[in-house]
Amino acid sequence: MDVFIEPIGRLMNEFSKLPGVGKKTAQRYAYRVVNMTEEEARGFAESILDVKRKVRFCKVCGNFTEEEVCSVCHTRSAEQICVVKEPKDVVALERLHAYKGVYHVLHGVIDPMNGVTPNDIRIRELLDRVGSGTVKEVIMATNPDVEGEATAMYIAKLLKPLGVTVTRLSRGIPIGGELEYTDEVTLERALVERKEL
Amino acid sequence: MDVFIEPIGRLMNEFSKLPGVGKKTAQRYAYRVVNMTEEEARGFAESILDVKRKVRFCKVCGNFTEEEVCSVCHTRSAEQICVVKEPKDVVALERLHAYKGVYHVLHGVIDPMNGVTPNDIRIRELLDRVGSGTVKEVIMATNPDVEGEATAMYIAKLLKPLGVTVTRLSRGIPIGGELEYTDEVTLERALVERKEL
Repeated sequence: MDVFIEPIGRLMNEFSKLPGVGKKTAQRYAYRVVNMTEEEARGFAESILDVKRKVRFCKVCGNFTEEEVCSVCHTRSAEQICVVKEPKDVVALERLHAYKGVYHVLHGVIDPMNGVTPNDIRIRELLDRVGSGTVKEVIMATNPDVEGEATAMYIAKLLKPLGVTVTRLSRGIPIGGELEYTDEVTLERALVERKEL
Repeated sequence: MDVFIEPIGRLMNEFSKLPGVGKKTAQRYAYRVVNMTEEEARGFAESILDVKRKVRFCKVCGNFTEEEVCSVCHTRSAEQICVVKEPKDVVALERLHAYKGVYHVLHGVIDPMNGVTPNDIRIRELLDRVGSGTVKEVIMATNPDVEGEATAMYIAKLLKPLGVTVTRLSRGIPIGGELEYTDEVTLERALVERKEL
């Protein structure tokens, strides 16, 4: 006999599919659901279905949207395009309230080791947008890891002949960080990319 | 403009109701749902509704069940009853595969500071079970904290006149623990309850 009755075991199994959720956490979540009111549980289930029903990708930038074109593409100047790997990177940048341009979500980075080629991510769509004429600057904001750097370099090479400025987010010691505890690669990069004061 | 579109924001809000889930984790979970297939999402939502539809409390022991009487009460001898605070404590004990008796889930412990009186937990039902005659031993397995201890003592006092043996899980230094790092209360208890070798 199993320790959990079937409906609880099944819900635990569903929760286990969420990132970072192990068996113990799945159990806590399932027990919380058991203790919800009918209405709460229905609201929870409904919001899961709703996300699948309503969320799609902006046909311009590739970010999540409920419309055909997202509200960022709809309302902002397309002179600057910030290129990111995933929708969550847009969230991180939007939180700053500092960037006023639009985005381009690649939905991945070039990663030959895992079979991701330039054709598997939204590079073609980016070139089309830049080719249309209004864009003045493309900011490459992929992660500063091997794949992110390679993808940024690859795209930059394709963009430059189109006559736009291509920039990259700066890399260096994090604000509040200490030299002593900064990894060597970052520290070397901070030295190479030092700025005149 | 909010950083998240409405359906994602709403699902994040639902995930935030789960124990220990903050905004960042809720976002990761919601994005995982966005990336699920229609079928996966439907299975997830359905299992939430199913738990509410199918899970009820065993009318004998108070543990979760799909039937009127749970499979433990149905199949095991009622000579030993192990009294616990919550259904998850049954899970912890069942995992051992060492206990062969039945359970009694109190659904709480006496906690006057938070307004929980003896009438608010399933003590009356326990007395009825013990009064029915087959029970020989009641094992008090509430947590070894202030409320758990007080509840165990309170119930033991009610049970003894009924002619059953009342026992308590032993308390002491955890296996693999070290004297040096054991808190004083536990260490004192281990000394007082020392056993002859």
